[in-house]
Amino acid sequence: MDFARPTIDCLTAYTPGEQPAAGSRVVKLNTNENPYPPADAVMEAVRGVTPEELRRYPPPDAAGFLRVAGELHGLSPEYVIATNGGDELLRLAVTVFCQPTAQRLGQRGGSGASRLRGVGSGARPDATLPAGEGGLGVAEPSYSLYPVLAAIHDTPLTPVDLNDDFSLPADLAARWNDAGCRLAFLVNPHAPSGRVQPVTELASLAEAFRGVLLIDEAYIDFAADDADALPLLREGRENVLVLRSLSKGYSLAGLRFGYGMGHPSLIAALHKARDSYNVDAVAQRAATAALQSREVARRTWEAVRQSRAWLAEAVTSRGWSVLPSGSNFLLARPPGDSGRARGLYETLKREGILVRWFDQPRLRDRLRISVGTPADHEALLDALDRID
Amino acid sequence: MDFARPTIDCLTAYTPGEQPAAGSRVVKLNTNENPYPPADAVMEAVRGVTPEELRRYPPPDAAGFLRVAGELHGLSPEYVIATNGGDELLRLAVTVFCQPTAQRLGQRGGSGASRLRGVGSGARPDATLPAGEGGLGVAEPSYSLYPVLAAIHDTPLTPVDLNDDFSLPADLAARWNDAGCRLAFLVNPHAPSGRVQPVTELASLAEAFRGVLLIDEAYIDFAADDADALPLLREGRENVLVLRSLSKGYSLAGLRFGYGMGHPSLIAALHKARDSYNVDAVAQRAATAALQSREVARRTWEAVRQSRAWLAEAVTSRGWSVLPSGSNFLLARPPGDSGRARGLYETLKREGILVRWFDQPRLRDRLRISVGTPADHEALLDALDRID
Repeated sequence: MDFARPTIDCLTAYTPGEQPAAGSRVVKLNTNENPYPPADAVMEAVRGVTPEELRRYPPPDAAGFLRVAGELHGLSPEYVIATNGGDELLRLAVTVFCQPTAQRLGQRGGSGASRLRGVGSGARPDATLPAGEGGLGVAEPSYSLYPVLAAIHDTPLTPVDLNDDFSLPADLAARWNDAGCRLAFLVNPHAPSGRVQPVTELASLAEAFRGVLLIDEAYIDFAADDADALPLLREGRENVLVLRSLSKGYSLAGLRFGYGMGHPSLIAALHKARDSYNVDAVAQRAATAALQSREVARRTWEAVRQSRAWLAEAVTSRGWSVLPSGSNFLLARPPGDSGRARGLYETLKREGILVRWFDQPRLRDRLRISVGTPADHEALLDALDRID
Repeated sequence: MDFARPTIDCLTAYTPGEQPAAGSRVVKLNTNENPYPPADAVMEAVRGVTPEELRRYPPPDAAGFLRVAGELHGLSPEYVIATNGGDELLRLAVTVFCQPTAQRLGQRGGSGASRLRGVGSGARPDATLPAGEGGLGVAEPSYSLYPVLAAIHDTPLTPVDLNDDFSLPADLAARWNDAGCRLAFLVNPHAPSGRVQPVTELASLAEAFRGVLLIDEAYIDFAADDADALPLLREGRENVLVLRSLSKGYSLAGLRFGYGMGHPSLIAALHKARDSYNVDAVAQRAATAALQSREVARRTWEAVRQSRAWLAEAVTSRGWSVLPSGSNFLLARPPGDSGRARGLYETLKREGILVRWFDQPRLRDRLRISVGTPADHEALLDALDRID
């Protein structure tokens, strides 16, 4: 028996990067973790959790965290929502702002499946909304979870190609508007290139776009201090949401904690759709301690920036081309023929070095390499020199 | 500006029971927490979390937990999915099995709002599906989150009233089938009455229902040992999902950890729709330790059963009527006129004693009282005797 609705049957789920078992001896430069450990204060917060805090339900809205995050960013707590990783904020935004389209039942198997694969491509003969209307805008290439979230919600997807250098096309907002998008996701610094889009361009984009612009700042901590979009919120922009994650900047990928900031009317709508107790008591405590010990995290950001420059120089001197990155990874094209990246990825994997290769247009000739420790980089370069 | 889609605008979000600040001196008998602390092994697991486990992404599918849970229940790991609280499993099931209906855009405000309030009541003139088709079946009264999840997903809701004694109506499956439900939620032991539905009736219901029957066993640990529905899975039932939560049985409401069990085809579909890393590294460790120290939890179940009997006897002797409960709460009707429950709830609250009162048909004349410690019960009875 097949009980899932056709959309889910046909869905190709998001594939996270490989996560080898703890303790395995690999050089892990594939999922953009911060190479340095979280602050001692965070570990103390985790160890200080009491039986009573676990026995009882957690504060449903993470009020203590919201207050600390608001103070840090110069916003009141109604501008902030805490989520179970940044991914939950992305899902909530799609749920709240994008319109699901109806698919008729009883069309499973062959024809139904091929029709439903058309979600987001305009091939939706049964939908009651015009193509794109009510849906999600994205700029490609980008985080491959975005289209999956649109598909799960049965909402149209409007992908617009970034320029060749991954800068924003001048007509980006117009194309999202023409398609009737109610929400758009833009990751800045861009993934997987690392490019930082100037805040002035983000401001223009938000001004021109008629829906909600979610700026995914998962990697912002590794960029320059003035690269973030929070000034737009402080200036009163009502259609901008800013996503932050503790996964990379605070070395807490294992904790699953992100947060969103935006106009209180947007935040209130997101609260309505989240699970009642979406972030647990331990995570609330640890995340609060992480923001309160931000200076410790900041030292890791500086170390990552230095290692990034060193690694970029090292691979460039070996003939690779590397884009300037404001993130904790580099998108790098090896010298030689354009099909070489995949083979290198596989050879490195056999050598115990994980990097990321994306089987996508404009990315197949490159590798995305997370910035690691100096020792990780030495291991990578040794392997590359042996392979060459 | 209003950016949320009309469904969310019109949504009355789920309201959790009051959660007073930690350390406040209240007798808390309103949200069904286990009155006893979690096992020491769980606290040790939390304290033993390493910086490296927080720095890296957690195992995306919680493989270690799935193995332990599968062994405990005599099922292979493909029968199990770990979720961020039981609530996430409920949301995933709606997402995966229920069909969203389309709502036209451009109908905000007055008429649009009133039309959309009709979601679930059959008043959906614009929907492309027949009323109920593709939607969620529930048996009322029940957990008030269920209709909220259907509304967020824009899927029709088919509520069927339970019998006066909260037993299952003979035509329950037929009515869900007639409405075209693809999924139904049934909580057992029933909330808020505590009634335990016999497994034979659940088996008949699953046999007769054409969609997926999710049996919400959030409170099963407090019932008799043979009350659970897992035998249906072991016998090969393909349309049953069983929900478990560590919130009550394992005294871990603060941890947010639940899990679902069912045929691997159902579980695989749920995995496709969940957030990539839905349960964090700390929770995976603590939840695994909780199941491994189940005998400690079992002693709290026995203590709760004894306290439940004692409390039922104590209020019965004061003229209350109490339904037999297999859960960690009692649904109890005070003597006197039927409007009295609300006033009692408010008076008790002023006295620092929280119980739950539901402003719903068939429940307004009663209070739901969580089973607490003997000291909690003494405080409650003292207050009741003073009020009377």
